[in-house]
Amino acid sequence: TAVMAPILLNCMGNDHNEYIKESVQVKNPYLDDMEEDILYHFSLSTKTHNLPEMFGDIKFVCVGGSANRMKAFAQFIHQELNLSGNPEELRDICEGTDRYCMYKVGPVLSISHGMGVPSISIMLHELIKLLHHAQCHDVVLFRLGTSGGVGLAPGTVVVTDKAVDYAFRPQFEQVVLGKVITRSTELDEGVANELLQCSTELQNIPTVIGNTMCTHDFYEGQGRLDGALCSFSHEEKLEYLRKAYEAGVRNIEMESTVFAAMCRVCGLKAAVICVALLNRFEGDQITSSHDVLVEYQQRPQVLVSHFIKKRLGLVV
Amino acid sequence: TAVMAPILLNCMGNDHNEYIKESVQVKNPYLDDMEEDILYHFSLSTKTHNLPEMFGDIKFVCVGGSANRMKAFAQFIHQELNLSGNPEELRDICEGTDRYCMYKVGPVLSISHGMGVPSISIMLHELIKLLHHAQCHDVVLFRLGTSGGVGLAPGTVVVTDKAVDYAFRPQFEQVVLGKVITRSTELDEGVANELLQCSTELQNIPTVIGNTMCTHDFYEGQGRLDGALCSFSHEEKLEYLRKAYEAGVRNIEMESTVFAAMCRVCGLKAAVICVALLNRFEGDQITSSHDVLVEYQQRPQVLVSHFIKKRLGLVV
Repeated sequence: TAVMAPILLNCMGNDHNEYIKESVQVKNPYLDDMEEDILYHFSLSTKTHNLPEMFGDIKFVCVGGSANRMKAFAQFIHQELNLSGNPEELRDICEGTDRYCMYKVGPVLSISHGMGVPSISIMLHELIKLLHHAQCHDVVLFRLGTSGGVGLAPGTVVVTDKAVDYAFRPQFEQVVLGKVITRSTELDEGVANELLQCSTELQNIPTVIGNTMCTHDFYEGQGRLDGALCSFSHEEKLEYLRKAYEAGVRNIEMESTVFAAMCRVCGLKAAVICVALLNRFEGDQITSSHDVLVEYQQRPQVLVSHFIKKRLGLVV
Repeated sequence: TAVMAPILLNCMGNDHNEYIKESVQVKNPYLDDMEEDILYHFSLSTKTHNLPEMFGDIKFVCVGGSANRMKAFAQFIHQELNLSGNPEELRDICEGTDRYCMYKVGPVLSISHGMGVPSISIMLHELIKLLHHAQCHDVVLFRLGTSGGVGLAPGTVVVTDKAVDYAFRPQFEQVVLGKVITRSTELDEGVANELLQCSTELQNIPTVIGNTMCTHDFYEGQGRLDGALCSFSHEEKLEYLRKAYEAGVRNIEMESTVFAAMCRVCGLKAAVICVALLNRFEGDQITSSHDVLVEYQQRPQVLVSHFIKKRLGLVV
């Protein structure tokens, strides 16, 4: 069975040994001994919710910063998968809290994560525990986001090759009990190439593969001249962006490094797909009209939807 | 006029020189030359909104992570200040976006900031620009939050003395164009002491002044044993918390250092008031009932409301 596709192995019942490589791995020896696990920021718990029944069939998890956008994505994928029921009536599974929102649409989970590394990191800890408790396997994660482009026309979609830090290094620094450790931010090359292939099969989704710089701030850290604080010149800003471009950076956002690092540690295949809302060589402010920005933000959704439909055999 | 109270100087008209020390200072030489400033994550702009008319009378800005909680605070302070109109009908000023929510109640602004340093930092850049564009002066900022207590009974309110990082240093590291700089996280001692005094005038708001540790993660960075990743022992966790306690840390949250640093650079008086939801020496999970947690979260609100009413002369 070694060469059998994972999707077939999934149909072979409860023999965990067969697909152990593809199951969701928490890296915490204490977790399975806990009497109850409260996923506090989801307002879910192993005692009050039957997680395997609720989530056991999840194969695709799509996350993004904005709650409204991830609700719109859930409604969109509901239509795309031709599922029964009214997409307007999708229920927020995390309605007991306003930290995140979560919608389940067939094998797809759509979750918001707020802005920045700490916010997405809380969500990912609880998501990975949820997938583990629910005994999910063969799950692919996608971050669908917005970003600033570096030398790209607004509206271009960037599929991340390497997620890099402010010094263009493919690593994430995590503090553990007061000590800084470093984790690799390598993403799944196969999924990235599959996404690029998908983009060629669609109209009007200009897509590139490039490095994505993840910062902890939107203004000074990204070289913007329009924050409340700014201590550098226009020329110094451009020099930093040029160095980034030379290091292969094509867009800048605020979550990719920890997303890549945590998925990698837990054996989850993952991809980052962000649309560039502007070209940072040309400005700092996001001045496009509301309608143009809404259309840009749909592009990663259309791309990932196509990927999911291909994986499910709904399109060839 | 040097000894005149700021509140009196405010009544003296447009002579900016008189109260320049108390005005909101952006530290960006380019800002006033911009034809338009789009506060993107608030969905406000200097061209489409009359910011001085909308916000010029703001004296107190209260910020907190949860959108629902900051709406509840706006409704609560509306009642406390005996203002006319229906508190149920308060309008979200940022309704054009779901990144943050914002409510104005007389001289009080209530804003949500999401979770973590990057999320609150975007909000603070745009808030400080907003207060500057609106020509506000003599503004006090409060962060009202939740936190993990270190050696404190659940429900205890901590008014922050120093906001400290993972190594208990009162500093915040900011990346500017790829270089790390360090900013002081000192808060206003006068406001903190005034808040402690307020707590003695109220029932059932047990309050201490202590250091607040700000981390970039809820699980590994705070020494929790219940995340998706955990590589340390129960004893190592307790040792880290004991060291924190010895360094004066009484609670742990995720926004205080950048809040303190940015307010300080911009000449804004600021305080951090967080309730401890649990005692981290006794556990990691937040197991109190929903009703108990709701009551705990009201305590910082009651304390800050009392402070505001005293400042406005509504209570003696």
